[in-house]
Amino acid sequence: MKKIDEEKLRQIVGDANIKTDPSDLYIYGSDSSVHHAMPWAIVRPKTTEQVQGIMRYANENLIPVIARGGGSGMCGQTVPVMGGIILDMKGMNKILEINLEDVYCRVEPGVVDDDLNLALKPHGVFFPPTPASSRIATIGGEIANNASGVRSVKYGATRDAVLGMKVVLPNGDLVNLGARTRVEASGYQLHKLMVGSEGTLGIVVEATLSFVPIPEFRCMGVANFNTLKDAGDAIGSIMASGAIPSMLELVDDVAIKAVNKTMNLGLKEVAAALIFEADGMVKEAVDYEINKMKAICQKHNGEDIYASYDPKERDKIFLGRKSLFPALSKYDDNLASTALADDMAVPYSKMAEMAGKIHEIADRHNIVMTAYGHCGSGCMHTKILMDTRRKDQWESARKAITEVYEYVRSVNGTTSAEHGIGLSKAESFKIEKADSLHLLSLIKKAIDPNNILNPGKLSQAPEDWVTATNLRYSVNC
Amino acid sequence: MKKIDEEKLRQIVGDANIKTDPSDLYIYGSDSSVHHAMPWAIVRPKTTEQVQGIMRYANENLIPVIARGGGSGMCGQTVPVMGGIILDMKGMNKILEINLEDVYCRVEPGVVDDDLNLALKPHGVFFPPTPASSRIATIGGEIANNASGVRSVKYGATRDAVLGMKVVLPNGDLVNLGARTRVEASGYQLHKLMVGSEGTLGIVVEATLSFVPIPEFRCMGVANFNTLKDAGDAIGSIMASGAIPSMLELVDDVAIKAVNKTMNLGLKEVAAALIFEADGMVKEAVDYEINKMKAICQKHNGEDIYASYDPKERDKIFLGRKSLFPALSKYDDNLASTALADDMAVPYSKMAEMAGKIHEIADRHNIVMTAYGHCGSGCMHTKILMDTRRKDQWESARKAITEVYEYVRSVNGTTSAEHGIGLSKAESFKIEKADSLHLLSLIKKAIDPNNILNPGKLSQAPEDWVTATNLRYSVNC
Repeated sequence: MKKIDEEKLRQIVGDANIKTDPSDLYIYGSDSSVHHAMPWAIVRPKTTEQVQGIMRYANENLIPVIARGGGSGMCGQTVPVMGGIILDMKGMNKILEINLEDVYCRVEPGVVDDDLNLALKPHGVFFPPTPASSRIATIGGEIANNASGVRSVKYGATRDAVLGMKVVLPNGDLVNLGARTRVEASGYQLHKLMVGSEGTLGIVVEATLSFVPIPEFRCMGVANFNTLKDAGDAIGSIMASGAIPSMLELVDDVAIKAVNKTMNLGLKEVAAALIFEADGMVKEAVDYEINKMKAICQKHNGEDIYASYDPKERDKIFLGRKSLFPALSKYDDNLASTALADDMAVPYSKMAEMAGKIHEIADRHNIVMTAYGHCGSGCMHTKILMDTRRKDQWESARKAITEVYEYVRSVNGTTSAEHGIGLSKAESFKIEKADSLHLLSLIKKAIDPNNILNPGKLSQAPEDWVTATNLRYSVNC
Repeated sequence: MKKIDEEKLRQIVGDANIKTDPSDLYIYGSDSSVHHAMPWAIVRPKTTEQVQGIMRYANENLIPVIARGGGSGMCGQTVPVMGGIILDMKGMNKILEINLEDVYCRVEPGVVDDDLNLALKPHGVFFPPTPASSRIATIGGEIANNASGVRSVKYGATRDAVLGMKVVLPNGDLVNLGARTRVEASGYQLHKLMVGSEGTLGIVVEATLSFVPIPEFRCMGVANFNTLKDAGDAIGSIMASGAIPSMLELVDDVAIKAVNKTMNLGLKEVAAALIFEADGMVKEAVDYEINKMKAICQKHNGEDIYASYDPKERDKIFLGRKSLFPALSKYDDNLASTALADDMAVPYSKMAEMAGKIHEIADRHNIVMTAYGHCGSGCMHTKILMDTRRKDQWESARKAITEVYEYVRSVNGTTSAEHGIGLSKAESFKIEKADSLHLLSLIKKAIDPNNILNPGKLSQAPEDWVTATNLRYSVNC
């Protein structure tokens, strides 16, 4: 381990904001992925000046710096594969301005998504990208990964909502990117480049975000399908029809069974269910969208089709989807739910085929995989349920993942829809972006010549994610 | 002038696709800006391979290459300030795919915006960014400048509609950027970086674009105002209200007089008029938006408020706005309409102040300026009407422009809303982006180390736009 000058860091952020205790280091060594690596120190800056001070120190001493928000990343983005300082950005969590006249807000990066929406709610507006982890995910982390969630189909991803930002560069310089206006054509839009760069280009210390009105009416519906193909075809048809759902979610049989088992919801154990929603200021317009989607589901052999404006009914419909993540952990006492191959996007017309492919590959490799996701955005999630103690299951998982991503690329899909690349997805990412990887490296090198910002990620990420880091599981031989 | 190996270029693109006649060179030496500079050759590639061949030749021989579409740029983006080859991309004008299932199309960069929309129309969809110059503007040019137009307030700018692209780099390498899916979180989104880079980073040879359904209902309204302040306040209130106009345009008294004079439309010569529109699939929802906007206009002392779904009535309302550009040229026989300080964006709440400021500055400098634009996106256009033969008028224009942009920056606005920077806006751009200009240079240098792609633009653009190039006017002393 490289020597860190703790005294120097203490001078910058104060005694209370630096941790080097091994138990703390261990906890900050992972996120919600399967990966683990030990950092050298945890530093929690409170101000932009402190971030600048840390960066100057790290840049001069060639010490890696990894910014971290809520730790909800699924792919190991903040796992410090080369050691270094974890910059815990949760200490910078002020909402600086809510400007209703000019329709933007300014926030520090450590603001939790739900907290921002809580602050916006009294004004009748909301920040839409909101991932499923919004209870803990920070705006900074969402920017780093171009996060999105159930409503991205209508409202877009984080990148679409970022108007500008202040960023500390590796050398400690502070730059203002973007603008506070709705349109901008003033040269390279570097704030958009920062979104999704996974902490490899700069540390976001402030973001200017747009928001939208909370709709007056919201109607949610559900349809059951006896084949995954029918459900997938319904998704494709809905999106090709020009419908504007505010949510379009798929859950497959594995997901439904998991939810029933742990929540006792009594959901019908069909091959797949679609949850769809429309929202707006005028009920007739919401009706129009809902009726359109209901009709398409019916055409594709959907059953038990039902929709409601009633908040309680809507909660009931969505409860299964909402509980899916914890429920999958309890699907089988011998199987752990791992965030592997957890996130990809394919063109709409491939949704059905993709879901089938996931099940076929899982069966062949003797693991359990589930297909679900924000299909209205082309986003398909999976989880791999496996016995993490068995080395052969890791080998199977690795083969399954490789095959899943081979399929994704073969249909012009992309490696990550909204969770980012981190470590777990590096293999597919590097194949998918083979021809532009050099361009990525050039930009990285130009902005971070000493390679101190989250080294070992994106263009530098290890292709073999199993051996690249320690796994957060004890694996027997 | 540097020696170009014409024979070499002929081998790459064929005899018919290269021009070096002085009259041709002269025409391609300008766009719709005030600037002019002579290129060394005009080359019209028909294929990606030809573009690659030209770039390899140019890169080895350090010859500037400037991609050009319809020549409708207002700020001199394609004016070859350092000479070189103009790459006339209009030869690559095939629509490669319209994929209704997956809701995207693929086009070559020379496709004219209106031609794309003509091809999409039978399928009930449209490509929304559409600038006013859509009759001649090409998709490649729109990408280079992040163009947008009257509908950007609801449907966004070009950047929002670009899912991916194929780009030839300065060294001739071809790279695939982005994806064919709706969401993507796979590393740096370099296709978004290319949008707005004004031909300084790569040559777009194919673009994947999203499209949206043509709305069933469209209603357009108009309101007259006796003060510019009232009109500006109405814009701010409409946007802060959460209304979703599909168009929100301002025209001031100068604009109205110009249109009346040339078109004999008999428009009431008030201080300002707002044209507003809403669209959608459900009439009740369109009514809701229109009524909301009408009420806000009324509250801000709007008069003669009127709206209609009838296409003929809508055309009548919009005719004045549509004719504005040519009409301004005929405002006064002694005054030419120049595209100077033609485009900026400010936060919504500053619209009224901005419009007033433009008039105040113009009066003080003894020139005529008009305020109009896509105010729903925060975009404010002006034109400077002046006697271009008089040198003192150029000096006045220069001072007025400096003051206008000083104001824009003082209210957190941005130099260009949708026309790009080119040469005319370099002064304000360089001040606005002073702290990130170095970052721009680093990226430019990393991707184009020999500085052959549109040199002398963006971070390299001359601050003194009057003396930087020849002007397309004969100026007496």
